[in-house]
Amino acid sequence: MIHKQRLFTPGPTPLHPAVQEAMGKPILHHRTDEFRAVFAQSIAGLKAFLKTSEDVLILAASGTGGMEAALVNVLSPGERMLALVAGNFGERWASIGRAYGMAVQELRAKWGEAVSPDETARALDADPGIRAVFVQLSESSTGAAHDIQALARVTRARPDTLLVVDAISGAGAMPLDTQAWGVDVVVVGSQKALALPPGLAFVSVGARARARIESSKSPRFYFDLRRELKAQAGGEAAFTPAISNVLALRAALAAVEAAGGVDALVHNAATLAGMTRKAAEALGLPLVAPRDHGDALTALYAPPGLETGAIVKALKSEFGSTVAGGQGELKGKIMRFAHLGYYDATDILGVLATLEIVLRRLGHRFDLGRGLAAAEEEYVRRVSR
Amino acid sequence: MIHKQRLFTPGPTPLHPAVQEAMGKPILHHRTDEFRAVFAQSIAGLKAFLKTSEDVLILAASGTGGMEAALVNVLSPGERMLALVAGNFGERWASIGRAYGMAVQELRAKWGEAVSPDETARALDADPGIRAVFVQLSESSTGAAHDIQALARVTRARPDTLLVVDAISGAGAMPLDTQAWGVDVVVVGSQKALALPPGLAFVSVGARARARIESSKSPRFYFDLRRELKAQAGGEAAFTPAISNVLALRAALAAVEAAGGVDALVHNAATLAGMTRKAAEALGLPLVAPRDHGDALTALYAPPGLETGAIVKALKSEFGSTVAGGQGELKGKIMRFAHLGYYDATDILGVLATLEIVLRRLGHRFDLGRGLAAAEEEYVRRVSR
Repeated sequence: MIHKQRLFTPGPTPLHPAVQEAMGKPILHHRTDEFRAVFAQSIAGLKAFLKTSEDVLILAASGTGGMEAALVNVLSPGERMLALVAGNFGERWASIGRAYGMAVQELRAKWGEAVSPDETARALDADPGIRAVFVQLSESSTGAAHDIQALARVTRARPDTLLVVDAISGAGAMPLDTQAWGVDVVVVGSQKALALPPGLAFVSVGARARARIESSKSPRFYFDLRRELKAQAGGEAAFTPAISNVLALRAALAAVEAAGGVDALVHNAATLAGMTRKAAEALGLPLVAPRDHGDALTALYAPPGLETGAIVKALKSEFGSTVAGGQGELKGKIMRFAHLGYYDATDILGVLATLEIVLRRLGHRFDLGRGLAAAEEEYVRRVSR
Repeated sequence: MIHKQRLFTPGPTPLHPAVQEAMGKPILHHRTDEFRAVFAQSIAGLKAFLKTSEDVLILAASGTGGMEAALVNVLSPGERMLALVAGNFGERWASIGRAYGMAVQELRAKWGEAVSPDETARALDADPGIRAVFVQLSESSTGAAHDIQALARVTRARPDTLLVVDAISGAGAMPLDTQAWGVDVVVVGSQKALALPPGLAFVSVGARARARIESSKSPRFYFDLRRELKAQAGGEAAFTPAISNVLALRAALAAVEAAGGVDALVHNAATLAGMTRKAAEALGLPLVAPRDHGDALTALYAPPGLETGAIVKALKSEFGSTVAGGQGELKGKIMRFAHLGYYDATDILGVLATLEIVLRRLGHRFDLGRGLAAAEEEYVRRVSR
């Protein structure tokens, strides 16, 4: 049987055809008016994508580079930071902080849950010296989501406490109103909702963050955002940009705009996520994040008696579909289906049908078609004609 | 909602990624050793694809050009021919014959059925002057298939009666053992099972046909196969070949080989066709060709009370999937889902799930998921692990 290779991983996600086409274009030089125009259009598009009129920077790095850039520019070594840790990527904030000698405090949630804004407010009340809170919009390791709007209300009320959000897999899949909510720094990666290959990170810089960046004493060179803010205001990156990726970024942002803008992309992911959750429930596959779930991806446990490893392996070997396994303490225990980015209903219905076949082959007892019926029903409920 | 553009039409079919890549390569000149090697490899691959060691020619034309080339080279004006007409493409054989002044006899089947070999034998007995029989392997307008092996037994027994098979949409989707069965001429198009764009036609020439070609008195120039047989034996086309398409042809044939050869491709189409028929039955959509169905495509009537036009339109507008409507006397009455070419189980399950949603929206009463359950069950029955 033919099996096409399909990625259902929460990054990288399938490339948009306009991206693929742009990546294949001839290279051009970056110190030219032609490229400066591409760069400026891309930044304008990113501002619309993140709903901010403040600065957004383009870095030649993957998401973790963007996280590091955000952290080292808003803190100085020895300063206090609060990491909200709800999974593997929350731990990454703490690890970067420790690598640079920050005084890291952690507020931990059980994996599959989110840290609550109230708890965060109490932690800040207890330690007013905390200069920044670090959190994920979507915690990709569990599918849980943080309430960024409520967290921003907490930090906005504290003049010396910034909110830095890793929205690498969340932006474009869940609501994020950067400026209106008062989020100081947002980090985004290219290989997620924007349907680009990895290689670019985007960092938004609000007014409060901008002041911090000027005063930070962290050692930094490639990720020195003072330099980037100055250069990118003039339409250039401080160092050589990833030229083809930026050409593709402009194409990806144009495709998002043409499809109805970031809100349409968020609605798309929410619909696919809702369909997947309903199918999982009908098939008896427990959600990893039943209460605090986001819409960037759905993380599921295997039904009782089955191993997720066998399910993930069969989806790949029999149908060519790659879904993600677990990370950190959930390694080997869960599987994760992506919704962020360039997926449509036909994609999700197709992979859910093959999941049914795989579950049946592995001995799970259920009526074939039951998960599909639930997913189709949910699609009809959410999408009106 | 995002909706990806997907073709489920029985030609053009989705391009194989290796084809897409090859089509984008720099052009090269055709009167070079480099291109002669590509051409020779392509012909070798086509011989494996059609299961013959006799000549196979590559023409820069779409399928109808291949049909015309086949017909005018094996007959002379005024000669008697028998067209087995089971639909729109069967009528095309008769039309080409009349355009060149052949004495055309037709043996017609009801649309949705095939012409039987017995009936064909009787027609040849009644008129021993018939010099060639023309037929479709897969009649794309109805999804019916002819029994080519049995028809070849009939024509092989008659020294002066050739069998010319339009396998444009059938080759690579249904068994076709050109040389062993004794089929004199087979015509294939590129935009079908080989997952290429339109633009190439392939014509196999058996020994009996070769003799005819030398003696035909039909007016012909571009499609003069005497010239092509001579040129292509030397690794070149007589006129300028469609160079990029031939580069892509080599890639497509290599992809077929890598995936297990033509038999694997046929098994793939048969499985997808079986799944679709079972889903249709479960959903109450009558088959256009319930008895003589082939596996290149499935043609379906709408369930009682619905119009296929509305279904076809909704699949396109709501989900981006293009399925074919009816042709000729079935125009507006049926819809056709392709299985030939680069499709996998996930594709078919996805489009069948969206078909369920569309049927539900249009008021058809059935349990959602029922068609999917039937398709999944059939997949499990046919494909062992």
